[in-house]
Amino acid sequence: MTEPSARPTRAQQRLQSEERILAAARQIFAELGYERTTIRAVASAAGVDAGLVMHYFGSKDLLFARAVEVPADELPGGTSGEVAEALLTSLRRRLTDEPAASLALLRSMLTNADAADRYRAAGKPQLNQLTEAISAPDAHLRAGLLSAIVHGVIAERHLLRLTHLADASPEQIIDLLRPCFQTLATAPPTSGKPS
Amino acid sequence: MTEPSARPTRAQQRLQSEERILAAARQIFAELGYERTTIRAVASAAGVDAGLVMHYFGSKDLLFARAVEVPADELPGGTSGEVAEALLTSLRRRLTDEPAASLALLRSMLTNADAADRYRAAGKPQLNQLTEAISAPDAHLRAGLLSAIVHGVIAERHLLRLTHLADASPEQIIDLLRPCFQTLATAPPTSGKPS
Repeated sequence: MTEPSARPTRAQQRLQSEERILAAARQIFAELGYERTTIRAVASAAGVDAGLVMHYFGSKDLLFARAVEVPADELPGGTSGEVAEALLTSLRRRLTDEPAASLALLRSMLTNADAADRYRAAGKPQLNQLTEAISAPDAHLRAGLLSAIVHGVIAERHLLRLTHLADASPEQIIDLLRPCFQTLATAPPTSGKPS
Repeated sequence: MTEPSARPTRAQQRLQSEERILAAARQIFAELGYERTTIRAVASAAGVDAGLVMHYFGSKDLLFARAVEVPADELPGGTSGEVAEALLTSLRRRLTDEPAASLALLRSMLTNADAADRYRAAGKPQLNQLTEAISAPDAHLRAGLLSAIVHGVIAERHLLRLTHLADASPEQIIDLLRPCFQTLATAPPTSGKPS
């Protein structure tokens, strides 16, 4: 234990450098995805030497693992309707300000198996909560559809930006999606139209 | 002009080789995405020399462009409700059997700007049709949401396979999504819950 001092200790300096490198890594992984991100580009954006990045993190794989750590997005419990509303609230937050760590994971998950695994693990608690709250025989599928809609909307807004969804207000998007979420979470199955 | 003969002409042989290479390229681009696909792997899967792939197609970029050519998925016109139903029919077909060319594009679009542009171009006619059929002040956003839901569901089923959506029957998925699609295409805006 050292006394507090005006000058940062070596450990503090290392922590600060690591944080700067992780912030740069998140931005670049989010922009380019895993494959096209280089240690050299991360080092340059963080204003450090590439050797230091390797010294601190060991490999691109390990840097990625640290950069994309996101807390699990758990919902408050409740009835199926309440949980659907909580999912909308979570989506509104993500439409406004999706963390770079999560965007880095989303950007990479279609082309990197490790990113897909991490994304699955991060989404698992929420998927289980949805499934339990829905409690219908097809609850697993309904939860999977809600989750696919959330991912499609987030990817379209923050990564693809191909449609008007990129510029709409979060409130407008949430209001349009509310009936979908409520129906998927609460309504009995409809009979299909004959094909 | 040559007479039909039992032995394929050189032009026919080339066409057959090109088709075999394109089929292999679609599979590998769909599995790995643009960045991780190599000319060598495509050549090996097609049973030809890598030099021949370069001779026929010129570059990985140009091979990708040819491999991901997909016909625009246009919907039959109609009222907003009818167009929503046509979008469901198109989705059911894609849930059963999405062409490898389209999967190759989907797999690559988050990490390759050219793939994203091609995906945008391929989806544009359908997006415009949806927007016109919906004909509400927020029709652009509603069409964008429908499109994002389709992409999210297709990516989850065919590429990510993280949830029960990967194994459900297309009919079950379509029946659950029908109220969402109908509401987005036809219902007046709901007022949001106060946050």
